Amino acid sequence: MTTEQTAVHVPPLPKGALRVIPLGGLGAIGRNMTVFEYDGKLLIVDCGVLFPDVDQPGVDLILPDFTPILDRLADVQAIVLTHGHEDHIGAVPYLLAHKKDIPLVGSQFTLALVEAKLAERRIDPYTLTVKEGRSEKLGPFECEFFAVNHSIPDALAVAIKTPAGTVLHTGDFKMDQLPLDGRITDLAGFARLGAEGVDLLLSDSTNAEIPGFVSPEREIGPVIDSIFAKATGRIIVASFASHVHRVQQVLDSAHEHGRKVAFIGRSMVRNMGIARDLGLLHIPDRLVVGMDEAMNLPPDEIVLMSTGSQGEPMSALGRMATGDHRHVTITPGDTVVLASSLVPGNETSVYRVINRLSRAGATVIHKEVARVHVSGHSPAGELLYLLNVVKPKNLMPVHGEWRHLRAHGRLGVESGIKPEHVVLAEDGDIVDLVGGRARVVGHAGNRYVYVDGLAVGDVSESLLTERKILGDGGFIAATVVVDSVTGKVVGGPAISAKGFSEDPEAFNPVLPLITDGLNRAANDGITDPHQLQQIVRRIVGRWVNEAYRRRPMIVPNVVEV
Amino acid sequence: MTTEQTAVHVPPLPKGALRVIPLGGLGAIGRNMTVFEYDGKLLIVDCGVLFPDVDQPGVDLILPDFTPILDRLADVQAIVLTHGHEDHIGAVPYLLAHKKDIPLVGSQFTLALVEAKLAERRIDPYTLTVKEGRSEKLGPFECEFFAVNHSIPDALAVAIKTPAGTVLHTGDFKMDQLPLDGRITDLAGFARLGAEGVDLLLSDSTNAEIPGFVSPEREIGPVIDSIFAKATGRIIVASFASHVHRVQQVLDSAHEHGRKVAFIGRSMVRNMGIARDLGLLHIPDRLVVGMDEAMNLPPDEIVLMSTGSQGEPMSALGRMATGDHRHVTITPGDTVVLASSLVPGNETSVYRVINRLSRAGATVIHKEVARVHVSGHSPAGELLYLLNVVKPKNLMPVHGEWRHLRAHGRLGVESGIKPEHVVLAEDGDIVDLVGGRARVVGHAGNRYVYVDGLAVGDVSESLLTERKILGDGGFIAATVVVDSVTGKVVGGPAISAKGFSEDPEAFNPVLPLITDGLNRAANDGITDPHQLQQIVRRIVGRWVNEAYRRRPMIVPNVVEV
Repeated sequence: MTTEQTAVHVPPLPKGALRVIPLGGLGAIGRNMTVFEYDGKLLIVDCGVLFPDVDQPGVDLILPDFTPILDRLADVQAIVLTHGHEDHIGAVPYLLAHKKDIPLVGSQFTLALVEAKLAERRIDPYTLTVKEGRSEKLGPFECEFFAVNHSIPDALAVAIKTPAGTVLHTGDFKMDQLPLDGRITDLAGFARLGAEGVDLLLSDSTNAEIPGFVSPEREIGPVIDSIFAKATGRIIVASFASHVHRVQQVLDSAHEHGRKVAFIGRSMVRNMGIARDLGLLHIPDRLVVGMDEAMNLPPDEIVLMSTGSQGEPMSALGRMATGDHRHVTITPGDTVVLASSLVPGNETSVYRVINRLSRAGATVIHKEVARVHVSGHSPAGELLYLLNVVKPKNLMPVHGEWRHLRAHGRLGVESGIKPEHVVLAEDGDIVDLVGGRARVVGHAGNRYVYVDGLAVGDVSESLLTERKILGDGGFIAATVVVDSVTGKVVGGPAISAKGFSEDPEAFNPVLPLITDGLNRAANDGITDPHQLQQIVRRIVGRWVNEAYRRRPMIVPNVVEV
Repeated sequence: MTTEQTAVHVPPLPKGALRVIPLGGLGAIGRNMTVFEYDGKLLIVDCGVLFPDVDQPGVDLILPDFTPILDRLADVQAIVLTHGHEDHIGAVPYLLAHKKDIPLVGSQFTLALVEAKLAERRIDPYTLTVKEGRSEKLGPFECEFFAVNHSIPDALAVAIKTPAGTVLHTGDFKMDQLPLDGRITDLAGFARLGAEGVDLLLSDSTNAEIPGFVSPEREIGPVIDSIFAKATGRIIVASFASHVHRVQQVLDSAHEHGRKVAFIGRSMVRNMGIARDLGLLHIPDRLVVGMDEAMNLPPDEIVLMSTGSQGEPMSALGRMATGDHRHVTITPGDTVVLASSLVPGNETSVYRVINRLSRAGATVIHKEVARVHVSGHSPAGELLYLLNVVKPKNLMPVHGEWRHLRAHGRLGVESGIKPEHVVLAEDGDIVDLVGGRARVVGHAGNRYVYVDGLAVGDVSESLLTERKILGDGGFIAATVVVDSVTGKVVGGPAISAKGFSEDPEAFNPVLPLITDGLNRAANDGITDPHQLQQIVRRIVGRWVNEAYRRRPMIVPNVVEV
């Protein structure tokens, strides 16, 4: 979804006030990034990417728009990374491309993931490892870190204390009360902070519309177990490559059922290596084997733990589905488990993969069929717990589309926050905390910055509109060669069309119309190529509308010789 | 999803055997159509459309491929329509365009909907109204009709009896045991038929993956009621325009809460008129008002019952979301209820509408937030009831993607059908019932027939591939004018690109490369325009890959003068 444009207006920051600029994450789920400003210094929380949807064809990634801070990077004290998901760390390489030495602050696992990412671009960042319970002074920002439970280990919330007030930014979180690693969201810590006074709460809105509470991650284990108990052939499980606890439960079930596990997919292999080295993933002796060994085992002694849970065509599972995987050919008897969410926008790709696997004979189990996934984000019931414990003066819902932000705002009001203290902001809005009251005071710009191939930011909204027109209707190009002096047609018209019709005769009726139109133009003394192009465009456009009721792009090409 | 091509192979039909050819509905949800052949005569059950997904850009509708029966339309005894949904009746006008007088057989409401559709094309069909409990002899096909409960009134299953055996085709169904109209799926009738012997069961697979049972439609009433009780402003409800019972419950709630109702959207107004006339929709006196009257009522006295539940941008709700509706401007205080399913593939559009409504200040309630929708299709638990009551000798799952068909097949085996008597077929497969055994014996073709604008069937898969390339990367057209005799470049190269870059300087580096390449070609004596085009294509393609790592379509245009 393209965010609508609001005029840029950056009022001066009052002395002693705190400014908050969400550069991403409000209005769409992804590219989370928030800039805090106090006394001329900046602190950034998260720097993630957004994945494109059908309205952004051909785009690889969408970045936050760094423009409002690009000439102030020297003022940035640090980038605090709440956890290691792509929508929170994915844009770090693009920001460090502007200034390599901005310190990265985060937990051990988070920094390990971002460092692996940066190593691919030969960037060796400055890092500061923090953990829950610790505080760090980053310029004028006194940051205290809190454990939060999420679908990746070692996630943190951060409280940012300045003389202007205290902000609590939750990052992504949920409140599983019995997580696998025993590391619960620190509600007690939030209560203590709340008692000290929280002026502004920035809190994860992803599931704010959904009533109730999430089921514990550990309830998935028995489900996986029962699938393993029934499976007589090979088992392939796909999940997010950073969901260490999900993978842990798969490993445990495999161990229980006498199966070996092989990791497939670059990010799965890499991340599980990091998780094991940091003691976050516990692998029983000789449980994990390489692909070569795995391929020599009988089908009922192997589990393949794979990437591709979102239907990515080039992923390990995607290639298995199309029969293009180097090692694995799906056969009847295979059981495939997608132990993963279904990220909105990915439905078509995911179901395509499931259908291909089913067609090849596999039994495919996914979250709509069995409880093999729980969300990583607190729904409404849990968000109310947080609101009631923290008792913030102001609430600014973050990490969500409008529907989520609006729902979260309603929860805030229901929990007792004054409606005028609920700040529903959009990407690029400038929110100032002055005298205990947060409100939108301006707008810093909120362009979607598209990465397409090697280029960053050269794809514009109007270019995407062109792609959509081309993708829906193809184009008809009409080339005419005119004499540069007389304007007379000396070659063509020649039609070249793509995505419109394969009938070579299809365009015969329009050729004489073009010639007639240009002859009339010549008689009227029109020789300007631009005007001639407009004439050609009009003639072809009218013809195709009447004959086909379609709207391909019309590309008139008048070449002078 | 493009169905993969299987070679066409049509073996002769053995004497006394029954042939079944699913022309649509297997491998994708939509374009349901099954052809039965016995003794040289044909019977068609349903004739629906499939709605395109992201892989079919610019396409309006997808039709079944009529090719296998086009030269045998004189043999068609009738088209039996099980119910009035578009994926079961939508292609009737396209088939009748080939032969207007094929009789349509269906229930009163089904025929009323299809007649309204045909009237728009000035086709006045031959019809035969049937109802549950009735039998009709259609050529050699003795058809008995059974009531089934679905998300539209007056749906029927059909048993087709021939000397070759009895087939039961369920159409779409679920088994709500307390439906609003008391018209339950006739399990007792199916039991009686089963006792007589069902050789082949064709049964709805849409929810075969989902465990359990559907909740009764009437449980939605209290949810709508509680939403109405809380709403202080205007209420807008969107649902499928044929879901009479859903609308009935909205009307009842409105009546209860002292609100008037206005229908918005062409199909809603039309269908509810038909339903009322047929006694299927019960409208309390003076409850329904026109839009003009509605606009003069206070917000808390009105309910707008609208189309647009699938995020269709041109629908009533879609226009409200963008602020383009003639009558209705969304304001804070409005409550919008999407009392509808979320058809796979429509997620992006539906959430976009919800976000726009939320941004405008509306409280939006949809099926993920409250139970305002139940499915119209039996999940696994109910399908087992049917299988156990009918005890068919052979099962052919229909109406589903591969994942659904496969899951339904597994249910069949679990219920006691021999695995070799479960026929997992695809669109176009030829299934013969010979001596009590059904099996795939050939393939009649299964092309997707695309409707795009006025044209039917002229858009091919390769054209869609061109559209996808254009939509993802745009195109770069390079026009060169060469002397037709010498092959020398006399004009250009000129670059014209769309969807690629807006930088007018972007193509400067490639122009000399093209000129150089063509000069070298001229020196080598190459003058053939086709070869010159290949040279230009290669030069531009290599340059854009190295400079951008992108793959736009390269369109070389060599014009001779």
